[in-house]
Amino acid sequence: MFEDRTKKRTELGELGEFGLIELLTKEFKPKNSSTTKGVGDDAAVMEYSGSATLVSTDLLVEGIHFDLAYTPLKHLGYKAAVVNFSDIAAMNGTPKQLVVGLAVSNRFSVEALEELYQGIKLACDKYHVDLVGGDTTSSTSGLFISITIMGDAKKEDITYRNGANEGDLLCVSGNLGAAYMGLLLLEREKEVYKANPQMQPELEGNDYVLQRQLKPEARVDIVKLLNDNGIKPTSMIDISDGLASEILHICKHSEKGCNLYEEKIPIDAETSILAEEFNIVPTVAALSGGEDYELLFTIPQSDYEKVKELKDVSIIGHITDKNSGANLITAQGTAIPLKAQGWDALKE
Amino acid sequence: MFEDRTKKRTELGELGEFGLIELLTKEFKPKNSSTTKGVGDDAAVMEYSGSATLVSTDLLVEGIHFDLAYTPLKHLGYKAAVVNFSDIAAMNGTPKQLVVGLAVSNRFSVEALEELYQGIKLACDKYHVDLVGGDTTSSTSGLFISITIMGDAKKEDITYRNGANEGDLLCVSGNLGAAYMGLLLLEREKEVYKANPQMQPELEGNDYVLQRQLKPEARVDIVKLLNDNGIKPTSMIDISDGLASEILHICKHSEKGCNLYEEKIPIDAETSILAEEFNIVPTVAALSGGEDYELLFTIPQSDYEKVKELKDVSIIGHITDKNSGANLITAQGTAIPLKAQGWDALKE
Repeated sequence: MFEDRTKKRTELGELGEFGLIELLTKEFKPKNSSTTKGVGDDAAVMEYSGSATLVSTDLLVEGIHFDLAYTPLKHLGYKAAVVNFSDIAAMNGTPKQLVVGLAVSNRFSVEALEELYQGIKLACDKYHVDLVGGDTTSSTSGLFISITIMGDAKKEDITYRNGANEGDLLCVSGNLGAAYMGLLLLEREKEVYKANPQMQPELEGNDYVLQRQLKPEARVDIVKLLNDNGIKPTSMIDISDGLASEILHICKHSEKGCNLYEEKIPIDAETSILAEEFNIVPTVAALSGGEDYELLFTIPQSDYEKVKELKDVSIIGHITDKNSGANLITAQGTAIPLKAQGWDALKE
Repeated sequence: MFEDRTKKRTELGELGEFGLIELLTKEFKPKNSSTTKGVGDDAAVMEYSGSATLVSTDLLVEGIHFDLAYTPLKHLGYKAAVVNFSDIAAMNGTPKQLVVGLAVSNRFSVEALEELYQGIKLACDKYHVDLVGGDTTSSTSGLFISITIMGDAKKEDITYRNGANEGDLLCVSGNLGAAYMGLLLLEREKEVYKANPQMQPELEGNDYVLQRQLKPEARVDIVKLLNDNGIKPTSMIDISDGLASEILHICKHSEKGCNLYEEKIPIDAETSILAEEFNIVPTVAALSGGEDYELLFTIPQSDYEKVKELKDVSIIGHITDKNSGANLITAQGTAIPLKAQGWDALKE
């Protein structure tokens, strides 16, 4: 849909592996003092003194995680990097170095990969992260992106999934469900386009949900905000699979239960309006939609006064004992057990 | 060819992503004190005090890097891990932590992935490396393995590709060309099998070259041997793409030339005999074959006495000035410029 067919096309084979890597990575200059040696040897070299190293990896597969019919390659590169930064933020750390593995079929040109890398570079520049290595190879079909992110944190600052205590407040950054509504909108317009390629997609007025889907951000600002306000979460996770699934992870790892209040779940007006258009209860988009990349965390009740004034942070529930289970408390006061794969009761 | 069709088959969907990861990783216990937190959170946590962190990544694609017709999954897992350990060894470091990304089509069962992980575990156990994270997802077709390895080294011990000096001796560990002959043998037997599935592959008497292809090792023992003997290479690289290509990397990065002596290249007898059977000059297998995962390194001439007695290390040439170029000196004393993609003059 968004493809520009007037661009120059250089075949991958014209450059070869080493030429291609050189072309794609030449604009990436190290920004962090911990980056001793980046791209161009058997391994990159990093130095962290007095802090712990965090590492996380993601594999993105065409046709499973992204659809190039409506995902511009630059956006894809940006998102692939940012969702990994989000994993480091979820540990209360700072993303620092990135390695990128690409497997591409000859359907892709050098220019296409340059666009993808432009997106990765935008993300690296914005989040002050260094690209330090990678591997570029062929695939028999489709595009595969493997990203591994390294970050650092003071050991005592790291937040795991297993630290939530009974009575802790359950908090979330930003708002939820928008990325999922953006996805539904793009899928709908793709169907319209497939039926009639002359039709232009009707995406106007939905900039916010589209941006949340195509160009998400990692909430390193929230990590900083909490730190600046002297708040250390007892547990934290980022929301990639939907609020319900992530809450259940925290409850399982911490061996606790929770009460989540439906009316407290932050949902943007554009998300709500579009959800109505799609006949979806907005809470369902928040609970099961995923890809919001907001941070879900727990804090001691004693930090209530500090957290309640924070911009862009909502208190949505509290941690209970394990035997009480993980429940959604509806506006009517009914407790419904949370399920990871969508909240069936709301779908009726 | 090697497939066992009597085994139980569990579909991937029966376990789900989290169940699958738990099943595959439950036998991996941390072995290194630097591994603070492994699988099971948004990121793994490592602590390196007083040393540098090394990182390298590889993406292996079915149909490009491996052929499951003759590669047992356990061997594939072992090899995928070991070739990454080799990258850390090539920096004069010690591999420590591994993250694994897998994209698999539903052609693969849970049991197949368990076999793959058994191979990864064998490698991790042998090389004292910890699996600390990963990502398991679907692919639309085929198997994709993304591996990122982290290691450590004292900063002053790290060897780069760019440190070779004029007059340095060019050395290589083990012997070369065997992995390539193993590959040619497997490819030949695959063709025979395709023509007549009743035929049993004729692989006997070629155990060594098959092992070099299917179950390579990383020369961390050579790193230790050099260190124990007080030898620090001025440059080092591992041989994944063939001797010629790797020598050219060292010459390019160090801005030097070299003389490589054909008769000094170490080649095993089994490799030579099989090469003759295939009508290939053994030197070509060594120069262009690749996948030997031996270490190629340069040392100062002053270390000659130390290195000449080392078991399993050969001196194969020396570094010259840039303008002399990178040359192969034949047994007849002729200088032939080295080329990365096979040595054409020998193919006539």
